[in-house]
Amino acid sequence: MSEKNADLHGNVLEQSPVALLVIDMINDLEFPEGEEFVQSSEQAAQNIVRLKEQARQHRIPVIYANDNFGRWRSDFNEVIEHVLHDQVRGQRLAELLRPDQDDYFVLKPKHSAFYATTLSTLLQYFQVKRLILTGISTDSCIAFTASDAYMRDYEVYVPSDCTTARNEEFTKTTLDFLERSVHANTTPSTELDLGKLRHQ
Amino acid sequence: MSEKNADLHGNVLEQSPVALLVIDMINDLEFPEGEEFVQSSEQAAQNIVRLKEQARQHRIPVIYANDNFGRWRSDFNEVIEHVLHDQVRGQRLAELLRPDQDDYFVLKPKHSAFYATTLSTLLQYFQVKRLILTGISTDSCIAFTASDAYMRDYEVYVPSDCTTARNEEFTKTTLDFLERSVHANTTPSTELDLGKLRHQ
Amino acid sequence: MSEKNADLHGNVLEQSPVALLVIDMINDLEFPEGEEFVQSSEQAAQNIVRLKEQARQHRIPVIYANDNFGRWRSDFNEVIEHVLHDQVRGQRLAELLRPDQDDYFVLKPKHSAFYATTLSTLLQYFQVKRLILTGISTDSCIAFTASDAYMRDYEVYVPSDCTTARNEEFTKTTLDFLERSVHANTTPSTELDLGKLRHQ
Amino acid sequence: MSEKNADLHGNVLEQSPVALLVIDMINDLEFPEGEEFVQSSEQAAQNIVRLKEQARQHRIPVIYANDNFGRWRSDFNEVIEHVLHDQVRGQRLAELLRPDQDDYFVLKPKHSAFYATTLSTLLQYFQVKRLILTGISTDSCIAFTASDAYMRDYEVYVPSDCTTARNEEFTKTTLDFLERSVHANTTPSTELDLGKLRHQ
Repeated sequence: MSEKNADLHGNVLEQSPVALLVIDMINDLEFPEGEEFVQSSEQAAQNIVRLKEQARQHRIPVIYANDNFGRWRSDFNEVIEHVLHDQVRGQRLAELLRPDQDDYFVLKPKHSAFYATTLSTLLQYFQVKRLILTGISTDSCIAFTASDAYMRDYEVYVPSDCTTARNEEFTKTTLDFLERSVHANTTPSTELDLGKLRHQ
Repeated sequence: MSEKNADLHGNVLEQSPVALLVIDMINDLEFPEGEEFVQSSEQAAQNIVRLKEQARQHRIPVIYANDNFGRWRSDFNEVIEHVLHDQVRGQRLAELLRPDQDDYFVLKPKHSAFYATTLSTLLQYFQVKRLILTGISTDSCIAFTASDAYMRDYEVYVPSDCTTARNEEFTKTTLDFLERSVHANTTPSTELDLGKLRHQ
Repeated sequence: MSEKNADLHGNVLEQSPVALLVIDMINDLEFPEGEEFVQSSEQAAQNIVRLKEQARQHRIPVIYANDNFGRWRSDFNEVIEHVLHDQVRGQRLAELLRPDQDDYFVLKPKHSAFYATTLSTLLQYFQVKRLILTGISTDSCIAFTASDAYMRDYEVYVPSDCTTARNEEFTKTTLDFLERSVHANTTPSTELDLGKLRHQ
Repeated sequence: MSEKNADLHGNVLEQSPVALLVIDMINDLEFPEGEEFVQSSEQAAQNIVRLKEQARQHRIPVIYANDNFGRWRSDFNEVIEHVLHDQVRGQRLAELLRPDQDDYFVLKPKHSAFYATTLSTLLQYFQVKRLILTGISTDSCIAFTASDAYMRDYEVYVPSDCTTARNEEFTKTTLDFLERSVHANTTPSTELDLGKLRHQ
């Protein structure tokens, strides 16, 4: 309610020109076509886990931007608990990508991680210039977030092995679309050098 | 990540033309001039408690719009725990206004409850037309939220006994300002008939 | 500066559940790949002209959402004059789609017609529910505007014969993407019944 | 419709850490309490004219942020023509503050110059850090714009002799409020050194 502009209440965020977004991976996959996501999203999750390790080494902030699944009354921890313990399709995703103590959260009510959320403000305090987008689904939340990032002048990375749509064709054509429309760099995570992106 | 537009994942929100906002009352008051708020904000808290009871009777949603105090990594429950248990000036506020199971939360990074938050989206799903603003501080977060509400065409209520600034003069001149600039209705909570507002 | 909320200064906008957007068709096409757009965008323009006539019959508002081409100091009329008279590739587009006296304008600084513009406010005063998107380029401004429209709960129409990308394949795959990601209705304009959309 | 992120279509804006906003001074004053503004706003206009001259000397951009008065179909030039030639109360304001060739425009649909406009994007491309707000009315559009500027981390200047409300008391209490709530610097324009602000 009072002074916060200079330093956000003394919580000076360590600056980083890069941020890693993990989008909708805490996900029960209990929607009609969810079954089609189980295998490919677990593969993506394993790749994101390795990217998170690299991010930690290089002091790159990791931000979970996650659907609140209409649970306006609860918080992200309850969403995590639900996916971990309620016998849902997405359980393995949450086991792999359970947030760490120093990860950041943004609950999003719609598809884009920028729409009606604090993401812009958070990125501005980090002084981020490059955004690495990972998660599901490539042709919905990833594509919408990528468009919004591009209009806000971020360089957009969508590592091709850290995202998936319902099937390979949809993933592929959407990545092609993002290369054209937002100049997304889709280099797979195994070939991304986060240290270099951090210090460019 | 998928279908949500029709019903926000099946969580159809019960419609209400009125919503009650409780702004920054979960607050440790541990800022320089915080001591000046202790007494008047406890009085406001007691009045808000009674307004919340009336709201529950009439099925009016209660939304906590609260500063995250720069704690981008935690959630509202941790903020509540901090104020309840860390021997801070605002402890009594949190005891009085501890959120109920069916209250809603919006974590806000800046002064206005609308800025970089999901509030607009949430109010739209409730089909709210009238907003009752309560909390602290009258001449910062309340005033900024009132301006934003007015520009979005909400009718604005700021019950004069449910808000406070650092001193009575600041509270009074800001309420006068809000009557002029956003046509705020500042009728004290004791004279507000929520049932009537709900069914107008 | 004063009273405007009730009626926008007495300019009560006639309500319509449908609006027709014409995106970036006032366009000199003087960018590197512009030559590839000349033929297909003139075809689209001719189809949009017929859709505009239908819109006028049914009192559906037509809104030009146009790039300001970095001309922050000028207005839309100067953009139109430039395209009409400066011997540019897009001259024929402007001749076909020169705005009428009762069309509306939104100058947009980025790709989406919603980003940093008054479009949302304008649509809200019209009480629009269905948005018909036309113009160029399918895989940039049209796609970005469609995503933003979908997140704001509009029903999205993108008549397949009123939009184009650099080539037919890009147009086609982007329309497929929009059918999947925002449930866009891509019925060609010749089969759209605006009267029915207006009165649904 | 295509490449614009790097340089806004080749229109690289000259960077400036300061911008001067002229808010709602192109104004017919033909609203109920408009008569009360005639004298004091002409005095403010004369002070703004001198501030504009100083701004030009120091290559500080001048941005007119003006109500569109519900004229969604017209542009700023038509608003200017109306005020200059239609025998309205605000004619003298427009004569004094007629925009120059190199001034910028932002048409705003509501009170704050930031709400549903391109202002944020424009300021970002200028790399502005300090905003000087001038115009009318102090307790509406100026106050709302000041709040929005503060939440976006701009340093806010509201020279006390370049703004007015309906009467001196309202002007004075709102300036006091802005000093408290957004830490506005209200030094009168005669004592402001724009050269210093430009090169800080």
